[in-house]
Amino acid sequence: MEKRLEIYSHAEDCPVRNVLNRFGDKWSILVLMILGEVDNMRFNKLHKTIGDISQKMLTVTLRSLEADGLVKRTIFPEIPPRVEYEITDRGNSLLVHIHKLSSWAEENMEAINESRKQIKA
Amino acid sequence: MEKRLEIYSHAEDCPVRNVLNRFGDKWSILVLMILGEVDNMRFNKLHKTIGDISQKMLTVTLRSLEADGLVKRTIFPEIPPRVEYEITDRGNSLLVHIHKLSSWAEENMEAINESRKQIKA
Repeated sequence: MEKRLEIYSHAEDCPVRNVLNRFGDKWSILVLMILGEVDNMRFNKLHKTIGDISQKMLTVTLRSLEADGLVKRTIFPEIPPRVEYEITDRGNSLLVHIHKLSSWAEENMEAINESRKQIKA
Repeated sequence: MEKRLEIYSHAEDCPVRNVLNRFGDKWSILVLMILGEVDNMRFNKLHKTIGDISQKMLTVTLRSLEADGLVKRTIFPEIPPRVEYEITDRGNSLLVHIHKLSSWAEENMEAINESRKQIKA
């Protein structure tokens, strides 16, 4: 296999695969996009905003984003405790690229839908 | 819910969701990245280059990319028939953004790995 293609082959620590795995998780992207629109948000508000994510999946997604330093979690010692999530600088630097991808999708959506119809016809 | 957040709520035809679904499929991205490096490639070569994808999944992935007009499939009437895949202009316009995301991942990989260790510690 040519050298330049080797990086796409399966390897545990491959940076390309690593980013693909992150983007293989649509919930992470959605949470980042939402937190990018607000100063901070509580768990229940996030849950309602997304709509079709389970509480468990949202918890897992937030923990994973927090572990990667993309989201920050703050607990306020009230009764009951208030927990707020906000996007970090690192998360925002990623969000720039996600928004560009999203714009590409909006710009190309019509042409893609046309292509899909032609295949079905 | 505020107007600006409404777009993230579940909707079948939501363009944001639509792009997320595409990026929820890491194989599609990987195939586009590989085809972006070559003029064209045959199925078996693609299969070997990726390494850990099943033939069936690769077939499904290629059909979906073809349906979206991101990849073009050409059959040469030889015996046995030769089938080659190449990236389209639309595919290349998407690939620009994928590469930027990939660069972001490489630049931030070390910091992210550090963050992950801190969580575990």
